[in-house]
Amino acid sequence: MRFGVLGTGMVGQTLAGKLVSLGHEVKMGARQAGNEKAQAWVASAGPSASAGSFAEAARFAEIVINATAGAWSLEALTAAGAENLAGKILIDVANPIAPNSGMPPQLSFCNSDSLAERIQRTFPASRVVKTLNTVNAAVMVNPALVPGRHHMFLCGDDATAKSEVAALLVSFGWPPESLIDLGGISNARGTEMYLALWLRLWGVLGSSPFNIRVVSNDF
Amino acid sequence: MRFGVLGTGMVGQTLAGKLVSLGHEVKMGARQAGNEKAQAWVASAGPSASAGSFAEAARFAEIVINATAGAWSLEALTAAGAENLAGKILIDVANPIAPNSGMPPQLSFCNSDSLAERIQRTFPASRVVKTLNTVNAAVMVNPALVPGRHHMFLCGDDATAKSEVAALLVSFGWPPESLIDLGGISNARGTEMYLALWLRLWGVLGSSPFNIRVVSNDF
Repeated sequence: MRFGVLGTGMVGQTLAGKLVSLGHEVKMGARQAGNEKAQAWVASAGPSASAGSFAEAARFAEIVINATAGAWSLEALTAAGAENLAGKILIDVANPIAPNSGMPPQLSFCNSDSLAERIQRTFPASRVVKTLNTVNAAVMVNPALVPGRHHMFLCGDDATAKSEVAALLVSFGWPPESLIDLGGISNARGTEMYLALWLRLWGVLGSSPFNIRVVSNDF
Repeated sequence: MRFGVLGTGMVGQTLAGKLVSLGHEVKMGARQAGNEKAQAWVASAGPSASAGSFAEAARFAEIVINATAGAWSLEALTAAGAENLAGKILIDVANPIAPNSGMPPQLSFCNSDSLAERIQRTFPASRVVKTLNTVNAAVMVNPALVPGRHHMFLCGDDATAKSEVAALLVSFGWPPESLIDLGGISNARGTEMYLALWLRLWGVLGSSPFNIRVVSNDF
């Protein structure tokens, strides 16, 4: 498959690297074609890796991943171009962290809205799936870093898109039974607001990879 | 110990009943002395149970529990009286759910503030500890309803108060190693915002009692 990974930070590089290792073709998108971090990644990642502008990465891709900083994601996706995103699965892994909001940081918006909903509203022809935003980059692509059973959430309005994303997560190492479908895209409010607890657990646990397991008699 | 449980709903009745069963004296507080639900509870709970106004319950108590609906908690605590709450541990188990905010409901405020912080700011002479707001009433007092290992968070600015509340949680059945101290009272933002995810998990799991376990190599 051809993936466009928008974002050159830790999350973008980690996801792009994993996709290449799984045999996919990946174009990393940045604000400007020729971005240094993207070029360095291409040099290290081999012939299936390439880089370009947000628009070039989105145009290239069959599946687009938003791994930009949440505060700038709508701007980045607008630069990518609605016409280059139309009809495609758009995996949103970002959290709308408010810049300069202290430590632990706050969200730019939440509760009555979410980044994933804003993206779906702004790009109604795209098939937005929210997932992976509840763990750090290393765990996203290597869930076995966290021992035993733990869960990954996904939500979105397009059931077929969610199935394809679930299969992608399984290819990353997430066991099928670890995936919890929360329903439509508005449920991203739940996983984005969980960031407030995640940040505090991170404060307690330090650098140790962690995640949560939902525990019940049925689950 | 003498407890004042503010609130006559499911959470208040469950906590008050557990406290009586553990040998404590409990006065349930309501907006009006003579509240029917409080009177019915007293009739069923035996000689260690009594009821009164919010102020009477707070005055009676060595430890006060806020189990009122979060939207009205500050009003209820104001009626209880700062002088009756001063110097006392005030356990806040409420979530600031916005009335008439749809399903799943939204919070009245979050992200840059929390109910527990508002309570601590409004009653600076009280020793506020936030806990138990991440599980339903049945699990609060019977954590074994959820199988295996799972966690309960607490936070507050007074370390001694947190220790006493931790001991109370252990008496409810929470294993000491299940308790995670998140730090100062502002960390209640994390556990209150988790409600957004809890509500959606509740939607997936239905009536089955559930909780989360934090999973890492260290924890």
